[in-house]
Amino acid sequence: MAATSTPGMLMTTINSCLSSSRNRVMTSTANFSAEHKEASWTRLTSSSHISSRQPFFQSFTSGNVKFQKVVTRAVSGAAEYKPLPGLPVDLRGKRAFIAGIADDNGYGWAIAKSLAAAGAEILVGTWVPALNIFESSLRRGKFDESRKLPDGSLMEITKVYPLDAVYDNPEDVPDDVKANKRYAGSSNWTVQEVVESVKQDFGSIDILVHSLANGPEVSKPLLETSRNGYLAAISASSYSFVSLLKHFVPIMNPGGASISLTYIASERIIPGYGGGMSSAKAALESDTQVLAFEAGRKHKIRVNTISAGPLRSRAAKAIGFIDMMIDYSSANAPLQKELSAEEVGNAAAFLASPLASAITGAVVYVDNGLNAMGVGVDSPIFENLDIPKGKELQDIERPTMVVVKRAFLNSLYEWLVKRAFLNSLYEPLAAAILLQVF
Amino acid sequence: MAATSTPGMLMTTINSCLSSSRNRVMTSTANFSAEHKEASWTRLTSSSHISSRQPFFQSFTSGNVKFQKVVTRAVSGAAEYKPLPGLPVDLRGKRAFIAGIADDNGYGWAIAKSLAAAGAEILVGTWVPALNIFESSLRRGKFDESRKLPDGSLMEITKVYPLDAVYDNPEDVPDDVKANKRYAGSSNWTVQEVVESVKQDFGSIDILVHSLANGPEVSKPLLETSRNGYLAAISASSYSFVSLLKHFVPIMNPGGASISLTYIASERIIPGYGGGMSSAKAALESDTQVLAFEAGRKHKIRVNTISAGPLRSRAAKAIGFIDMMIDYSSANAPLQKELSAEEVGNAAAFLASPLASAITGAVVYVDNGLNAMGVGVDSPIFENLDIPKGKELQDIERPTMVVVKRAFLNSLYEWLVKRAFLNSLYEPLAAAILLQVF
Amino acid sequence: MAATSTPGMLMTTINSCLSSSRNRVMTSTANFSAEHKEASWTRLTSSSHISSRQPFFQSFTSGNVKFQKVVTRAVSGAAEYKPLPGLPVDLRGKRAFIAGIADDNGYGWAIAKSLAAAGAEILVGTWVPALNIFESSLRRGKFDESRKLPDGSLMEITKVYPLDAVYDNPEDVPDDVKANKRYAGSSNWTVQEVVESVKQDFGSIDILVHSLANGPEVSKPLLETSRNGYLAAISASSYSFVSLLKHFVPIMNPGGASISLTYIASERIIPGYGGGMSSAKAALESDTQVLAFEAGRKHKIRVNTISAGPLRSRAAKAIGFIDMMIDYSSANAPLQKELSAEEVGNAAAFLASPLASAITGAVVYVDNGLNAMGVGVDSPIFENLDIPKGKELQDIERPTMVVVKRAFLNSLYEWLVKRAFLNSLYEPLAAAILLQVF
Amino acid sequence: MAATSTPGMLMTTINSCLSSSRNRVMTSTANFSAEHKEASWTRLTSSSHISSRQPFFQSFTSGNVKFQKVVTRAVSGAAEYKPLPGLPVDLRGKRAFIAGIADDNGYGWAIAKSLAAAGAEILVGTWVPALNIFESSLRRGKFDESRKLPDGSLMEITKVYPLDAVYDNPEDVPDDVKANKRYAGSSNWTVQEVVESVKQDFGSIDILVHSLANGPEVSKPLLETSRNGYLAAISASSYSFVSLLKHFVPIMNPGGASISLTYIASERIIPGYGGGMSSAKAALESDTQVLAFEAGRKHKIRVNTISAGPLRSRAAKAIGFIDMMIDYSSANAPLQKELSAEEVGNAAAFLASPLASAITGAVVYVDNGLNAMGVGVDSPIFENLDIPKGKELQDIERPTMVVVKRAFLNSLYEWLVKRAFLNSLYEPLAAAILLQVF
Repeated sequence: MAATSTPGMLMTTINSCLSSSRNRVMTSTANFSAEHKEASWTRLTSSSHISSRQPFFQSFTSGNVKFQKVVTRAVSGAAEYKPLPGLPVDLRGKRAFIAGIADDNGYGWAIAKSLAAAGAEILVGTWVPALNIFESSLRRGKFDESRKLPDGSLMEITKVYPLDAVYDNPEDVPDDVKANKRYAGSSNWTVQEVVESVKQDFGSIDILVHSLANGPEVSKPLLETSRNGYLAAISASSYSFVSLLKHFVPIMNPGGASISLTYIASERIIPGYGGGMSSAKAALESDTQVLAFEAGRKHKIRVNTISAGPLRSRAAKAIGFIDMMIDYSSANAPLQKELSAEEVGNAAAFLASPLASAITGAVVYVDNGLNAMGVGVDSPIFENLDIPKGKELQDIERPTMVVVKRAFLNSLYEWLVKRAFLNSLYEPLAAAILLQVF
Repeated sequence: MAATSTPGMLMTTINSCLSSSRNRVMTSTANFSAEHKEASWTRLTSSSHISSRQPFFQSFTSGNVKFQKVVTRAVSGAAEYKPLPGLPVDLRGKRAFIAGIADDNGYGWAIAKSLAAAGAEILVGTWVPALNIFESSLRRGKFDESRKLPDGSLMEITKVYPLDAVYDNPEDVPDDVKANKRYAGSSNWTVQEVVESVKQDFGSIDILVHSLANGPEVSKPLLETSRNGYLAAISASSYSFVSLLKHFVPIMNPGGASISLTYIASERIIPGYGGGMSSAKAALESDTQVLAFEAGRKHKIRVNTISAGPLRSRAAKAIGFIDMMIDYSSANAPLQKELSAEEVGNAAAFLASPLASAITGAVVYVDNGLNAMGVGVDSPIFENLDIPKGKELQDIERPTMVVVKRAFLNSLYEWLVKRAFLNSLYEPLAAAILLQVF
Repeated sequence: MAATSTPGMLMTTINSCLSSSRNRVMTSTANFSAEHKEASWTRLTSSSHISSRQPFFQSFTSGNVKFQKVVTRAVSGAAEYKPLPGLPVDLRGKRAFIAGIADDNGYGWAIAKSLAAAGAEILVGTWVPALNIFESSLRRGKFDESRKLPDGSLMEITKVYPLDAVYDNPEDVPDDVKANKRYAGSSNWTVQEVVESVKQDFGSIDILVHSLANGPEVSKPLLETSRNGYLAAISASSYSFVSLLKHFVPIMNPGGASISLTYIASERIIPGYGGGMSSAKAALESDTQVLAFEAGRKHKIRVNTISAGPLRSRAAKAIGFIDMMIDYSSANAPLQKELSAEEVGNAAAFLASPLASAITGAVVYVDNGLNAMGVGVDSPIFENLDIPKGKELQDIERPTMVVVKRAFLNSLYEWLVKRAFLNSLYEPLAAAILLQVF
Repeated sequence: MAATSTPGMLMTTINSCLSSSRNRVMTSTANFSAEHKEASWTRLTSSSHISSRQPFFQSFTSGNVKFQKVVTRAVSGAAEYKPLPGLPVDLRGKRAFIAGIADDNGYGWAIAKSLAAAGAEILVGTWVPALNIFESSLRRGKFDESRKLPDGSLMEITKVYPLDAVYDNPEDVPDDVKANKRYAGSSNWTVQEVVESVKQDFGSIDILVHSLANGPEVSKPLLETSRNGYLAAISASSYSFVSLLKHFVPIMNPGGASISLTYIASERIIPGYGGGMSSAKAALESDTQVLAFEAGRKHKIRVNTISAGPLRSRAAKAIGFIDMMIDYSSANAPLQKELSAEEVGNAAAFLASPLASAITGAVVYVDNGLNAMGVGVDSPIFENLDIPKGKELQDIERPTMVVVKRAFLNSLYEWLVKRAFLNSLYEPLAAAILLQVF
């Protein structure tokens, strides 16, 4: 699911037509029965007792009653906590909803970890079709290594909600999506329903993180992008944030904060980041300001966005473009190191915290400073110019790249879909194919 | 119809739902029969002979043959023209297609006039439902006063095309729109068809002007904007430009240029400009850069956008918001005069001309400088600050002033008194304190 | 001394001519003999033992030997520290030099406190003429209330260095400044000498904070600003940062960071912030990028700047302009609260910390979002527009302002100087007159 | 003399210390006797009669009386002129003072030509030490080829004033400069005196062009730039504009305009453009806004700046950096052609003209769009990315490509083999994999 590897680096190329019927940006798996969940929940609870911590993963289907205790705890706020030493990013007593986590890499996951490290309770919204794999991976401990926080404990995810932020309420969902077997098993995954569920489960949240992006035609130049592709990018990557904030605001506590992820391609030309994704990020950045005003004035909620550099994730490894951008950053940014997801996570935690109580409507660049460059210093033209290049980078071994026709990958994707392999794929490689390449 | 009075100032509140059935952003009237047109054409030709000029309005339905002569002339280019004296914005031999004119006020019309004054041939794309009124007003001479160019002649519009830039080709048009009587009488008004028609009629164009905007929910805060409203704003105001350029590029001559209209609300918070219109303008500005690269590299076409201030037009009078923004600009901009449509038209003509051959991917502000203000100087808070407010205040000679709190001066006075310094103050200073301060 | 109340809000109007002879931006008092210092140091050490803490104020004149222990501790770095719980802004083991603290309000002081709260050791550079008052206030416990950190302890200032960042080395100092009695008592206060002293005392630093600004003609419109006034503003407010970084870089540990303070007037028109101060802040912001590249590539040092809103300090109370900007912000910013110095301090601590390890070359706005506004919403023109105004703000009681001729205040200042009152002034009010009003 | 070839590209390395005594940014030759001038004037007058035009070069030393006629003509304004056909950049009846022309290449010269082509009367301010060569070159016809205007006539320069914009009035000039033989022969070359001379000669001007820049340490990184070097850059390149406008404003006609030249290095990192020149351009851009407000409000004068790309001039050939930037622009800008000085000149003429009457406080980019690039597309890293590279590559038909790591495709292949999916792949797809990918 979306935006896990870079802000705007295209996640899925699942063809998301606005009014057509085939594919959706977000959905829910059929084979996730309540019974099954209850079982997993019990098992997880047990395992978490072993680690002498609360369950990290709680996926109730109708847990209004069960969560009452939690609600009480959450409402109480940070006031009752014993002060931490030093100058902490203190999110104890805060509850965060992170929309757009489908695996254990990418910025969404890293932000969740930083928020958790700072003490926040973590709720997650996962794209419906990816929900099954994500939850089973969680249950099976496949993410345990990635869940490790600085203090050695494991990040807990209080609840995972199926979410498809392309739909605001059930009436918006076309019949074919409803009928799609990858969605049919889940329910209440439109934005309005998810917020309603969160409200019933927890009463309120303090932090909203938007880590969603999708541009089905991201690899096409803008001049070759179709209207449907463009609007799908906007709907999934920009309006999804407006919608989430709009629906969450009534249950967000004053002083709350929201964060989204953007990419410098909105402000300057980055060939290769196409399909209207640059347009979507531009809209998102503009909306950040407008929503900062509207949500700030009425609800004392802050709204910021992080313009993050490219991230080397499993996804990125598959997509040459991201890999190239990482190499480009290493060669050209003021800081010649590779960006880690944690750096974006930490910046997000800061922005969400009281330490940033006067920061709103801002684009904060977490990209090793690349956005500030006026030229690419690795241009062959500057070969003889005395530009400090960073010793260690001169030896970087570049993987061999091959260029393939997009048409080939499209065919492959369609072929896989046609053979219903998609549903059964959950291997990392398959996920890469499903989510990243097309 | 879109954006005729200000860039993004919402023109119509016609409810333009993306997938619903009632209203469309652009269409064509049913009662415009070929016979009727032929008649008007004849009459117009006659009238134009009277003014010893070519017909200003030629609305053929299938005029491939008839236009042959025109095509020949157009293809020939500017090379054959005798040089003009001075430093002219010389568009002789160039053909411009202006999308988004439906009456004789607004920026679209003004741009057409400036382009015409500079010698360009004018083709117009008019929103289908507005076509009938526009054409009949043209025929009846209702626009004659407005058509007057600097040299006294009247602007000629070679052809008016029905256009609804929300649809790219006939397959995109929903049945209910097809059936709508305001559309049923026209044909070939999707983007692809219009471009096809222009190609058949004239072969090529040199200048594309995008003066289209629509945001059905413009008066709603962004937090209350629906997905359909948001996407409709993007589709009509941003993607419409991508689509027009994409389709026109193959028949645009190298060295050609395109211009669109944007508004500062994309970059900074302007409450009242809602419904996703700010998002759409942000996308449009971002796209301007990306398309400048793509169209520049492949086709040597330049792409710029004008960020224009609000325009007092008939439309504006109806919308209080625009009127307020005009007053706000007069009170706060560096240049305290009202913006005229002509000023935007002239900037557009310059940008479209060879004089601007090195300008591309740019946002050019034509707004009396308002975009550069960091504060609203007419705030009641600045009442006592020495801010030049216009002519009427220039006669008052003011010494350089500083504003201090009375309390501070009181303290100062008391402190001086306490220390018996006051007695020793030489007269002028004492007088100053006693007379001016307290 | 400079920049204590707002970034760029003019601190002093002491006439700082570049090559003339009368006044300087920074210096050291004559009556601070080594003997005197030794005494105070002893006393302070004792008092600090009482509070079972290290001395908060250590002003050695030649303490190479004495600091050996400290150097050892400092070099050791954060690695040896036990991890803090949660997500801390962890600056333990880091040493910060904050240039531009002269009292206990203003952003410099607040940044020092946040850095100290995060565990950093604090060194301070104080403008030479203000040194005496600052140190005696520190010694007498006048700042004790302000020194209180979140955990109840008092911020320690390891050492205060006299500094006048307008001079890079002794050869630059004109004779009249050397002879000035406010400077004559101090030594080694040029940038190069201060850095040399820090190197001898501590070996290295990790964090450099620039909280300096001076524009002798800040109250003059730019069109009336003299070359000397303009260049003095640039020299004291922009180049002073280049100079400090340039000299400190060789003794800054890799991974180090520097922070400066800027103001939105650099990017957009803020009438009232004149005298070239807007120009100086523009240069400072531009330099932030260039230095981020140069210091990042060669030394792995990050360089960022905080664009902070106006701060209500004692200084601000005296200067109507700042007070007006505070009211303007409350009326117009997305967040309708008053900015606290602590908010800027916390942002600075974050930026200086490993949590911000991928942020460099950035302008980070800490201003309640005011920078994002495109209009002043409190304009009388928008009276009837439905803009959320924040209930509590409608009752704000505004102090009565009076407007006085600048000439009057200049006369007053000169009169005070002439009568040698200046040297004996150290009351808060007098400080306000000396530093803030003129 | 400065900035004639690019905006900020350093022209001279004359060591300009602010308070030292050796070199100055601008001055006047000693050997230019009044007698000599009178002679040349006579000769020029004659030669101009031959070409049946007015003298193009009139260098009076005390021509108050002689210019009376000219003044009369100039004051009369454009009103009396017969309208030009088309849409002209009409500057007839306007008088322009261009500060910073010392030869016949560079932007200053090109702007003068465009203004002249548009009908403006041209006055020139030439750096004192360069005056002699410039004037003699003019007289001897060495610039005649370059003086040719579009209509075939030669640009006339009504008068050349010696100017050193680093000094505002005679009291500012150090003795050593006064004594310098390159200055001793000229007089009245400080800003105030030049303006006084222009006032006496012509009464008023309409257009002020600032084409001055000097940074004695431009080739040094900012971190190695001295205070004197930095302030010299600011004084010569930024404040010189403030000073010129400040002094000219009282004799500028309402509706007048001023233009300066800047460079993108102010906004983003361009290694190689050092010495504080980037800082100076940042200040200049910021000042453009502030002065637009101040001069706009009080005097109805517009203030804009052109951010121009690098120009291949004689100067540029000498400086490798400029040459590299030209090549970089050709390789990376949206428009892959070399920038001509004329393009900047035409943009300046437009901005100075009534056609731009609503444009003020703006930075207008005339750089083939390079400023909009987010990456250098000629980076070796993008070698395999499908970026349009110019005409020569257009014939190669490329399918839409994506770049993926060979390793990924290997994994995919292995995974498919392992799962025996490969056997079932339909032929075309299998062929695609086998033939194209591996």
